[in-house]
Amino acid sequence: MITRREELNRICKEVIARIKPKEAERRAIKSVIAYIVTNLNRKASEMGITATAIPVGSTARDTWVSGDADIDIFIMFPADMSEEYLKEEGLALAKSVCDRYEERYASHPYIHAYFHDAGTEHEADLVPCFSVKSASMLKSAVDRTPFHNQYIMQRLHGLEDEVLLLKQYMKCLSIYGSEQRRKGFSGYLCELLILNYGSFAELLSNASRWRYGERIDIEGHGKYRGADPLIVIDPVDPNRNVAAAVSRNSFCKLIDAARDFLALPDQKFFMPREAESMTQAEFLKLVKERGTEFVTVMFDAPDVVEDVLFPQLRKAEASVRNLIERNEFRVYRSDVTVESGKAMLVFELLVWQLPRIKKHIGPPVTSEAHSEHFKSKHSPPFFIEDGRYVVEVARKHTDVVSLLKHELNSCSLGKDVSKSVENGYEVLKTEEIRGGLGYFFSAYFGVHV
Amino acid sequence: MITRREELNRICKEVIARIKPKEAERRAIKSVIAYIVTNLNRKASEMGITATAIPVGSTARDTWVSGDADIDIFIMFPADMSEEYLKEEGLALAKSVCDRYEERYASHPYIHAYFHDAGTEHEADLVPCFSVKSASMLKSAVDRTPFHNQYIMQRLHGLEDEVLLLKQYMKCLSIYGSEQRRKGFSGYLCELLILNYGSFAELLSNASRWRYGERIDIEGHGKYRGADPLIVIDPVDPNRNVAAAVSRNSFCKLIDAARDFLALPDQKFFMPREAESMTQAEFLKLVKERGTEFVTVMFDAPDVVEDVLFPQLRKAEASVRNLIERNEFRVYRSDVTVESGKAMLVFELLVWQLPRIKKHIGPPVTSEAHSEHFKSKHSPPFFIEDGRYVVEVARKHTDVVSLLKHELNSCSLGKDVSKSVENGYEVLKTEEIRGGLGYFFSAYFGVHV
Repeated sequence: MITRREELNRICKEVIARIKPKEAERRAIKSVIAYIVTNLNRKASEMGITATAIPVGSTARDTWVSGDADIDIFIMFPADMSEEYLKEEGLALAKSVCDRYEERYASHPYIHAYFHDAGTEHEADLVPCFSVKSASMLKSAVDRTPFHNQYIMQRLHGLEDEVLLLKQYMKCLSIYGSEQRRKGFSGYLCELLILNYGSFAELLSNASRWRYGERIDIEGHGKYRGADPLIVIDPVDPNRNVAAAVSRNSFCKLIDAARDFLALPDQKFFMPREAESMTQAEFLKLVKERGTEFVTVMFDAPDVVEDVLFPQLRKAEASVRNLIERNEFRVYRSDVTVESGKAMLVFELLVWQLPRIKKHIGPPVTSEAHSEHFKSKHSPPFFIEDGRYVVEVARKHTDVVSLLKHELNSCSLGKDVSKSVENGYEVLKTEEIRGGLGYFFSAYFGVHV
Repeated sequence: MITRREELNRICKEVIARIKPKEAERRAIKSVIAYIVTNLNRKASEMGITATAIPVGSTARDTWVSGDADIDIFIMFPADMSEEYLKEEGLALAKSVCDRYEERYASHPYIHAYFHDAGTEHEADLVPCFSVKSASMLKSAVDRTPFHNQYIMQRLHGLEDEVLLLKQYMKCLSIYGSEQRRKGFSGYLCELLILNYGSFAELLSNASRWRYGERIDIEGHGKYRGADPLIVIDPVDPNRNVAAAVSRNSFCKLIDAARDFLALPDQKFFMPREAESMTQAEFLKLVKERGTEFVTVMFDAPDVVEDVLFPQLRKAEASVRNLIERNEFRVYRSDVTVESGKAMLVFELLVWQLPRIKKHIGPPVTSEAHSEHFKSKHSPPFFIEDGRYVVEVARKHTDVVSLLKHELNSCSLGKDVSKSVENGYEVLKTEEIRGGLGYFFSAYFGVHV
């Protein structure tokens, strides 16, 4: 008889065989990295620039999942150089080595470069940074990365496969990546979790019992005191929580999936679950069965990066949901999506129509001044309920569509979303909805291949 | 120019002229009272019973509104007699003087008697009680009445008209009477309020500024410490609040009407407002305009006195309202009524239908044991929302009528109502409603002649 642990090990081996880069892929990536690093360092000395290029990230640490190789090269400048110098010389140096490039900007300017090697085009990010003395003396946010790189490189050896398993597992749960749209686990965080627990299986076994505020502090030097669901103290910076981006939802999803996998190990946990595309007829049939009504607010997606856009969309979602419920309608679920240049706030409703009549509740009868004011403002009949004046008034909007068509501007939507909404938006209900039919709604309903 | 106070005085005079019993009515009542008291006392001595009859209540104190004469005669026995003796001899004595009678029971047995005098039939309550030493040494609840009678008789002289105004005013506001259906102001309470403030106008002027817990203690001896809206210490019993039956609603109605009348004195405040009868067509039209739905629960009114029935109906109303709202429907207003032997719980609804689908919210993902139990009890897909498991389940009742037809027995309805409902009940919606169309609904909607 095969034990559950043997079964788990067998599955993990099969997964590794499938997702670990083959020798050819590995060699190609390493050769591009070597080419770029060598060229950068040679050019630097040619140009009289005091700077050293180093490879960082998953491709430097052999922790990339086959097909997902992101090449990151950092160009380290002495910490006493000015930011101006770093930017000018750093970007000039980066540009000098590549075939084609785009200048990009995150918290810091960098070059997204293209290289041709053996008939294939490779991409890489070339990022100038300062070589600071310690990770707590940053001049810019990217200066921390070389410390992460060094920390992992010196310790991870032999555990790379465990990291691959964890990354693939998280990808399939849609919780891999710390960006705003996802609010999940970064690659560095995955590596630290494996370092801490020693293996993928051990991590899951622990995660299945995690409680809010779970604290991991490998170096035992943590000073961070936030209230995040998961706290993983950065080994190179005691004041930083590497898991700060992990939302409650991502945290819970990992816990839940850990229990499921340990109870019944299965390859399917490592297979990307793609939502089935949904036709309009399927959508309408499903909604009819549910008995709910969908209302969407659609507008041109503002031209900003996702990490800026998604927090604004979530804010807009919450604000509009609040508007709807303040007006006594009831939201069952809501979500946001962006596709084909359109942003969409989606509301599934339990109550989307209400009677014309509405109670307007006034002051307590015992407060004389307020009562006088209230009675002068409204027409009889006045009722008294629970010690307060009540009048019946006409409800301004008896359905959600009318409410959103007229009152959306009263919601706080975030700067860029607000600007886009000002240029026009559509409010659509179930039978008018076209956007999101492809994949968004099938994921929403939990319909998977 | 006429001042507002002069106008008020003019109106009050006119009202008094209309509602004060004319000399003929007064003489007729007084003569019946004298007849009964004389006969009772003579019979008592004939039968060798140590008892004295005295007239009490509004007809004894000249504070009855014309046409509303209730004759109350108390037969006082020495306090050292047994309850058995009081009951047997008291009732026998009472029966011996009247032409016809019914034996009745409140907190105490008494005789409702009929007398013929000068071609008219008069009714009177003949109540045996103990002549206790003080109102705080009662042997039965009715023993307090002679003390009330004596207290008022000794002090009210000259203020009778003010009491008449107040009683008529409260009748027209539907807050006169301390019975459970009304929860308003008793006749004795009206007399005490006038004694305290000196006049009807002065009472209103004070009432317009009343706050919760308003305390009136004429004798300055109060020991009562309840949280009622109005506290009027019984001059003959420091531990009793004469206004204990006054509901928050009755309290507020008086305050509100006091302000209105003082601002614009008008005869209409003393004219009974009779609700207009409403046809079914009018009812349906009105409900259509409101956009709401009415649902009533109708059953045979249990054969108990109103003071027992109404608290049970109010309890049933609250319990059913809670059932409805627990099931996520929404009640706009509710009420109860009894007519033609039928009791009816009335619910006006804002939301009376809901989608088939329903969220069933499970335990926090972080509590492992509960999570396991929940997932074993329900079928996937499981969603995670706000850190908790959620499954979508089918709602058992998608409309209020179905809910009430199947789940009414889960409500706590009160003993007699419960028994009656067990024998069968109907759940009717707007277009099926017939009961209450006469007057109940026109009063409900505030439609007055």
